[in-house]
Amino acid sequence: MSFELHSRLAADTEFVCDWPLCRVLLMNDSRYFWLILVPRRDSLTEITDLSAEERAALMEETARAGRIIKSAGAAKLNIAALGNQVPQLHMHVIGRAPGDAAWPNPVWGRGEAEAYDPARKARRLGLVRSG
Amino acid sequence: MSFELHSRLAADTEFVCDWPLCRVLLMNDSRYFWLILVPRRDSLTEITDLSAEERAALMEETARAGRIIKSAGAAKLNIAALGNQVPQLHMHVIGRAPGDAAWPNPVWGRGEAEAYDPARKARRLGLVRSG
Repeated sequence: MSFELHSRLAADTEFVCDWPLCRVLLMNDSRYFWLILVPRRDSLTEITDLSAEERAALMEETARAGRIIKSAGAAKLNIAALGNQVPQLHMHVIGRAPGDAAWPNPVWGRGEAEAYDPARKARRLGLVRSG
Repeated sequence: MSFELHSRLAADTEFVCDWPLCRVLLMNDSRYFWLILVPRRDSLTEITDLSAEERAALMEETARAGRIIKSAGAAKLNIAALGNQVPQLHMHVIGRAPGDAAWPNPVWGRGEAEAYDPARKARRLGLVRSG
């Protein structure tokens, strides 16, 4: 049972690190501090496909990502597992603030992603890898 | 420390029942089988405001809502805690299917809510209260 990341997630993100349950990815969109957590198990599409223990672990890793994002200045967290377009189970953890590119709406489908300045990306990757 | 539901959530939903952690609400929008879970604690805005035990309970109640919604025929679950407009911590659990009013996009900000036919609402309330 090898874990394989969905091609769309691979294309839209940069690898950050592996936590006990999840692969941690940084979305290639500098408008938001936006992490994606992907449980490293095969053939998952819903949280109900996980055991209760795995769900608790996913929740704790979601909270861990959220604390890192808030420590970098986010006013609000948005967390979501949608998967209408990419079936592989993945949790979005997104830092939001009044005045950001989609506020107060959800981020999906609002405008175009903006590329990262390398220094800013390195700073965010460092925060997550050490957080 | 009495629990008080945010006025916007009260206006947009119908009370279904109380589970061990959360108040369970049915969104007044018949286009989707859409539940909202609100932990019955004061002054929560983020999942990081909960203890790890409460987070695990929220995750289990989210999965419980998801199983009920899938048993009624949903092809996919969307779960999300956003809170950009209503700060009180609440978890959306929404049944989705190809061809629904927003598919494959998230539901927020897509068209207008549609009122329930009373029989359909009663059926969904019954499913959750017995599920």
